[in-house]
Amino acid sequence: MSGRQQGSGKLWGGRFAETTAASVEAFTASVHYDARLYRHDIVGSKAHARMLARQGLITAAERDAILEGLDAILKEIEAGQFEFRPELEDVHMNIEKALTDRIGPAGAKLHTGRSRNDQVALDMRLYLRDEADRLDSLLAGVQRAFVTLARRYLGVIMPGYTHLQRAQPVLLSHHLLAYYEMFARDRSRLKDWLARMNFLPLGAAALAGTGLPIDRESVARELGFSGVTANSMDSTADRDFILEFLFCLNCIQIHLSRLAEELVLWSSKEFDFIRIGDRYCTGSSIMPQKKNPDIPELIRGKTGRVTGALVSLLMTVKGLPLTYNRDLQEDKEPLFDSLDTVSSCLAITAEMLDHTEFNLTSLEAATEGGFMTATDLADYLVRRQMPFREAHGVVGRIVARCQEQGRELTDLRLDELQEFSDLIEEDVFEVLSIEGSVNSRTTTGGTALVRVEEALRRAEHQLEQES
Amino acid sequence: MSGRQQGSGKLWGGRFAETTAASVEAFTASVHYDARLYRHDIVGSKAHARMLARQGLITAAERDAILEGLDAILKEIEAGQFEFRPELEDVHMNIEKALTDRIGPAGAKLHTGRSRNDQVALDMRLYLRDEADRLDSLLAGVQRAFVTLARRYLGVIMPGYTHLQRAQPVLLSHHLLAYYEMFARDRSRLKDWLARMNFLPLGAAALAGTGLPIDRESVARELGFSGVTANSMDSTADRDFILEFLFCLNCIQIHLSRLAEELVLWSSKEFDFIRIGDRYCTGSSIMPQKKNPDIPELIRGKTGRVTGALVSLLMTVKGLPLTYNRDLQEDKEPLFDSLDTVSSCLAITAEMLDHTEFNLTSLEAATEGGFMTATDLADYLVRRQMPFREAHGVVGRIVARCQEQGRELTDLRLDELQEFSDLIEEDVFEVLSIEGSVNSRTTTGGTALVRVEEALRRAEHQLEQES
Amino acid sequence: MSGRQQGSGKLWGGRFAETTAASVEAFTASVHYDARLYRHDIVGSKAHARMLARQGLITAAERDAILEGLDAILKEIEAGQFEFRPELEDVHMNIEKALTDRIGPAGAKLHTGRSRNDQVALDMRLYLRDEADRLDSLLAGVQRAFVTLARRYLGVIMPGYTHLQRAQPVLLSHHLLAYYEMFARDRSRLKDWLARMNFLPLGAAALAGTGLPIDRESVARELGFSGVTANSMDSTADRDFILEFLFCLNCIQIHLSRLAEELVLWSSKEFDFIRIGDRYCTGSSIMPQKKNPDIPELIRGKTGRVTGALVSLLMTVKGLPLTYNRDLQEDKEPLFDSLDTVSSCLAITAEMLDHTEFNLTSLEAATEGGFMTATDLADYLVRRQMPFREAHGVVGRIVARCQEQGRELTDLRLDELQEFSDLIEEDVFEVLSIEGSVNSRTTTGGTALVRVEEALRRAEHQLEQES
Amino acid sequence: MSGRQQGSGKLWGGRFAETTAASVEAFTASVHYDARLYRHDIVGSKAHARMLARQGLITAAERDAILEGLDAILKEIEAGQFEFRPELEDVHMNIEKALTDRIGPAGAKLHTGRSRNDQVALDMRLYLRDEADRLDSLLAGVQRAFVTLARRYLGVIMPGYTHLQRAQPVLLSHHLLAYYEMFARDRSRLKDWLARMNFLPLGAAALAGTGLPIDRESVARELGFSGVTANSMDSTADRDFILEFLFCLNCIQIHLSRLAEELVLWSSKEFDFIRIGDRYCTGSSIMPQKKNPDIPELIRGKTGRVTGALVSLLMTVKGLPLTYNRDLQEDKEPLFDSLDTVSSCLAITAEMLDHTEFNLTSLEAATEGGFMTATDLADYLVRRQMPFREAHGVVGRIVARCQEQGRELTDLRLDELQEFSDLIEEDVFEVLSIEGSVNSRTTTGGTALVRVEEALRRAEHQLEQES
Repeated sequence: MSGRQQGSGKLWGGRFAETTAASVEAFTASVHYDARLYRHDIVGSKAHARMLARQGLITAAERDAILEGLDAILKEIEAGQFEFRPELEDVHMNIEKALTDRIGPAGAKLHTGRSRNDQVALDMRLYLRDEADRLDSLLAGVQRAFVTLARRYLGVIMPGYTHLQRAQPVLLSHHLLAYYEMFARDRSRLKDWLARMNFLPLGAAALAGTGLPIDRESVARELGFSGVTANSMDSTADRDFILEFLFCLNCIQIHLSRLAEELVLWSSKEFDFIRIGDRYCTGSSIMPQKKNPDIPELIRGKTGRVTGALVSLLMTVKGLPLTYNRDLQEDKEPLFDSLDTVSSCLAITAEMLDHTEFNLTSLEAATEGGFMTATDLADYLVRRQMPFREAHGVVGRIVARCQEQGRELTDLRLDELQEFSDLIEEDVFEVLSIEGSVNSRTTTGGTALVRVEEALRRAEHQLEQES
Repeated sequence: MSGRQQGSGKLWGGRFAETTAASVEAFTASVHYDARLYRHDIVGSKAHARMLARQGLITAAERDAILEGLDAILKEIEAGQFEFRPELEDVHMNIEKALTDRIGPAGAKLHTGRSRNDQVALDMRLYLRDEADRLDSLLAGVQRAFVTLARRYLGVIMPGYTHLQRAQPVLLSHHLLAYYEMFARDRSRLKDWLARMNFLPLGAAALAGTGLPIDRESVARELGFSGVTANSMDSTADRDFILEFLFCLNCIQIHLSRLAEELVLWSSKEFDFIRIGDRYCTGSSIMPQKKNPDIPELIRGKTGRVTGALVSLLMTVKGLPLTYNRDLQEDKEPLFDSLDTVSSCLAITAEMLDHTEFNLTSLEAATEGGFMTATDLADYLVRRQMPFREAHGVVGRIVARCQEQGRELTDLRLDELQEFSDLIEEDVFEVLSIEGSVNSRTTTGGTALVRVEEALRRAEHQLEQES
Repeated sequence: MSGRQQGSGKLWGGRFAETTAASVEAFTASVHYDARLYRHDIVGSKAHARMLARQGLITAAERDAILEGLDAILKEIEAGQFEFRPELEDVHMNIEKALTDRIGPAGAKLHTGRSRNDQVALDMRLYLRDEADRLDSLLAGVQRAFVTLARRYLGVIMPGYTHLQRAQPVLLSHHLLAYYEMFARDRSRLKDWLARMNFLPLGAAALAGTGLPIDRESVARELGFSGVTANSMDSTADRDFILEFLFCLNCIQIHLSRLAEELVLWSSKEFDFIRIGDRYCTGSSIMPQKKNPDIPELIRGKTGRVTGALVSLLMTVKGLPLTYNRDLQEDKEPLFDSLDTVSSCLAITAEMLDHTEFNLTSLEAATEGGFMTATDLADYLVRRQMPFREAHGVVGRIVARCQEQGRELTDLRLDELQEFSDLIEEDVFEVLSIEGSVNSRTTTGGTALVRVEEALRRAEHQLEQES
Repeated sequence: MSGRQQGSGKLWGGRFAETTAASVEAFTASVHYDARLYRHDIVGSKAHARMLARQGLITAAERDAILEGLDAILKEIEAGQFEFRPELEDVHMNIEKALTDRIGPAGAKLHTGRSRNDQVALDMRLYLRDEADRLDSLLAGVQRAFVTLARRYLGVIMPGYTHLQRAQPVLLSHHLLAYYEMFARDRSRLKDWLARMNFLPLGAAALAGTGLPIDRESVARELGFSGVTANSMDSTADRDFILEFLFCLNCIQIHLSRLAEELVLWSSKEFDFIRIGDRYCTGSSIMPQKKNPDIPELIRGKTGRVTGALVSLLMTVKGLPLTYNRDLQEDKEPLFDSLDTVSSCLAITAEMLDHTEFNLTSLEAATEGGFMTATDLADYLVRRQMPFREAHGVVGRIVARCQEQGRELTDLRLDELQEFSDLIEEDVFEVLSIEGSVNSRTTTGGTALVRVEEALRRAEHQLEQES
């Protein structure tokens, strides 16, 4: 007997008196996007089939037929020869139908003791586990690009900014390694996500578990899970692991957006801190002179869609009663889109950073002016026992005087400085120098060369160990 | 000379020393989604070319070559024979390049006095104007479905709910016409949007206007705009019209989501108010008895993505300096996706409503019990001069008594009722009846049959006039 | 008899056997935020009372007692002597209870023929109508600030940017007037909102209308509505008018965020285009030299909360069945917060702009360099019959040459230019000048002085007419 | 000398020529919401002061003066006697100013080697660490409420739903324990968050570290951190830990929203599964009979604001260049609001569950009808070697027959069943029983009583161990 039933013409259609409307097939189909799960669907089905055989629910011959059939389908798909049909709804039904067409009744036994509800929960976990791995490599790639730049430009000084105002001089490498830290947190977040979600949902069947004597634990082991999920209703209703993954993607993209903003600023004529290679910029259809930082702009612009995807799924899940509701089908497109978006942003970022040069002349010029060592002067007074808050006031007044006269701190003579405080002596000019300022900041995490070198070595070491 | 330059190999590539990296071409290309603007891009280019000729910027022969070339390209595209090439970035460059390949130097004159910045702003407006029209028809279609149901079931009574608790009896048709009103507001919102955005941006060029003697007003007239935009920098920086359109889509989808929730509830065994046709439901892969309201579930579930899209663009535009930034390329995918989503939800809703039957037995059964005429009883006392707040208290106590005894209001004898207030007389039983309650609510907008008939006739009349 | 009932101790408590838990009172109370509706609640109740008297549902004496009672309560509230009590839940119940305490049984008649469901819908509309008016004035204030600046600096040239790259020279006033246009759209959006929502919901009662002989039309007239809402169920379920208002607020804030970004950029040492007055900046707790553009930063930063509020309400309304559900109480806090946020941002923006000076030296310096007249050179060739796309290529190559040699376009000699095209003649140097470029852009909406003067006069005229 | 400077009148005001505008003070002040950090600000300052003394940056006497001063201020605040002044901007400046006023110059030394940038980063971490602890207890409280209910109703059967359609019978306790699992994940997420964020940011100073010889590690130890942050620029720019905390709150609230939806459904007359105690419901201002599930409705309705808060901060951080920007001040209000919202929802949920009774009659009635053992019948056939997909079809046809005849599966006679398959024998009626179905599902995580008892014991054990 064929897998197709009278009535709806669907694998589930026994009780239906009419065929599904074509508009409904089009509206409800998901195969145009969930086909990307094919490999994990097949891996999961193979493990399921092996277990069914171990449990005596199918024969060894049936199992082998199923395994071979699935392998053949996998090859077909990877060769681009498999036709996914929307009227079969989703990747699961397309593959099951193809299997039955190919191997007959044994195929019709594959769905024993499982439902699409737990099957899709399994596929998504298997798929995301692999994707998390890939993401982690991409994150490492971006970290590597930062480390390379930090090594190349070690010693170069630039202004550190708060409020986009020049604040204190820092090492360019210190600035770059701030991003190393952000992406390290992103990686750690993915790791926690993995540990929390790495449980096999299969065996929850529709929602209540199954009465057939399946063995979930052995499937979990075979598929590399730490264990099985604890409650069958939760197993089919839960989308936490997708929400959390989307949140991890959001953190990454937010970090990329901050970097992107800086690259756009630094590419401007006004900052002129970097030159992104021609191959990584584009021009204007009308203005012949333009060379635009399109890549960081697009990355920054794509942040919205990644947050939009998270909102989308939070809103979808909100207020859904247990257990599975069809609304949950809407988990995939925002997820896939975000995954593709963030992955491509990470990949192009690493590549672009490799083709970015810093303009040392502009960086140096930017450290002059802006009174960036004013804090150093205040700290100098503190070391001479002036309370910090008073020192802050004294230096503020010195800066005000300079501004009136269009001068910089280093332009003042000692006697002029001493008008503001007699604690100031000849050695003050050391603390007013940009290099002096940078290298004085030797506390852990500070921007002194010695600290940054350590941090850089630590980062290089970590990345080496991984590869 | 060919349109291709040395250097980047791009139409804009004169100043570039290197070709664009393939990864960058892939990352920045938009033609895979903006190709859907082809028709409006061509319409806009044709109007532009005619104006250029009128202004003497190109010859009549050049104009004709351009018009014919564009028409030929249009035909090619519609026949599926045009190859959009990602390395040409977007729909605009693809078409311009094809034109130049086809007609030579005249093609290279088409971009005179315009930029992609104002061109895409034009294309989007032309495109959305048409889409708004289509949406309006879909909205009318859903309104029509409601009116048809309201006519069919005129006179049927059901519980009106607040807090998902039975509150007061209403006409089913009154409930259905509440949706007519919501979608009427959606249509009115689109109309206001159209009036606000219907100004030609072309002529803003890159951002500053152009020094060439173009005539914007004539192009505006030809393309059916009310006028031209007033500030060239605003014209290329502005995405308000897309944000507002996305908001209009959100309102529609929110309305659909409320309807969807009701359809899901009403399909449950517990409510059992409706039967959606088999052709508009699907089954379960594991549970042979299941017939699920997938369509309303999916509609409800898709609400998130439409809100996500709005968030996406708000976030993208936030904090962008003037004028055009590449981030703005990210306006299209969320818009197109939302447009497709909302359109398909509207279309399937109208169709599904046409295949939905109400279960009159369940509706009637649901109006019994629940003390739904308690307010009528309070109003009865008010008419006998008891202050409303006191009447509310009296009836509350009657209800409490009934609950203790497991009885309904209509089960009480007159003398039992009179224990609570001697204002109650024999005629009280009229106001306690479900029909009496419904038909007493004759104020404008109320649920009395006479009012609902009026509202229905008004709606029918309005829809007729449109078609 | 007192308004308080046995049981819950609540005005609605007749049927309840137990008093409400204190934790529940705290959790469900809204009076700490909806108290701000007191004035509109009273206005609405007064109109309702007058109507009740006209319809014979209360006596003239009762009406007068109610009106005087409400006026007295209003005075008390405005004098800060009214105690809002959370255990009375909301502003409506607090006022009704105070009225009954004050005038006795007549007060208990005020709630005749209405429910909190339609009452709160009325209050919100009355409140927002006033707020929209206030917002419109604030928007006009910001427009006025731009017009003042545009007038003050008329003639000053600055770089126009795309992709944050210098693109073409524009008048500073042209740039400023782009914001005039954005805020004009914001005002037009509010106007449309008003027309769409200006219908009286009162009379919908709980959801079904009322059986008492009320007269909605007269109340609508008295309260300045265009008419009454058409469907009682829609009237109590609908929150479209709040969603749309929130969207209007979002558009305003998005515009403010773009301005804020520019002000932050322009305040940086690198751009140095403006100087915001000391009174509108703050300093650093540690760095004595800092003067930070806190206000634009905060405005930009507050954009998130305004979008968050819109998301919040969309998510709340999503999937709610008809009619009123308590979830809808959550419409107020995001609305009020957004309203306060946007209002204060508008007010401080106008004030800050009045205390902002442009640095003409920096602006002028910024127009030199950057090849900003490259498009003019291409257009020059177009006027000499070279196809635009070819001209674009020629100029691109000239720019590339300049870059290699570290020169600007105006540094090239005629013979050097002629190497690239013999169409170039002596008069080319006119089009290469910044002033020449600006003033050539005379098409409608362009940046030529003559156009900007017109636009400025138009704006000034419009603002004058309003005040 | 006093802490107040000439110029702006601010602690940071040395360089300012004018006082801050009152409107600016109002606009930029945060003390009305960040005052809640006072305790953690003081704890942090005390640790900082002790370290300054250890490092010789202040004397032991100064340290003691500071510690005593801060303790005194703490007492004042907790006694409600401290006046927070908006013109002093934030909690940090209010406390520092009060300290200096109280103890003189020693107070002015407290800010040595730190900035508000790292101080606020510290305060937020200390504060959230405590809040996470409190949240964890609240989560445990809700879990406890579920476990109590699950124990009380152990053995009661109800319908399990998919698509809000009755699907398969499950134990009520199994359904309740699904929520136990969700909240367990929420707790695990908070734990990971804590481990990732538990690093001391103090010592980053403004952004670059400090040149003064501070000792970060000892402060970290004293305050219970696992270590110090690795990069000073990242330390002041980073808000990941707040974003991630907001996400954790969103997951909790999403879980609560699903529960809330179920409680609303179950409270409806149509389901009638539960009775929430009178003390946990409220009534209607107009309809005397109403008793509404306000608490779950409000919880469901509050989900939007928690997601809105996350959106808010993602949008705020997006695209911010390093390091601190004033936009980041906007991290607190959405966070505090979400924290309060989720905390109060958790607390009231636990309380309400304790006052919720299940209606066993309705639950039992609901398990009859709906063909909920159809899957069992299919599995029965599978055990008799019919391929599952074929069995699914057979049962589907049996269901269709029943529906035509208005009968249930158990109404069919053996010979009627055998018409569909001769594999069916007398023992089929065991698998068609509701109890039989439930108890057959004995796989790990399934709904069989034996499995649910185990899960319940495990949960009870875990909660006991914690308390």
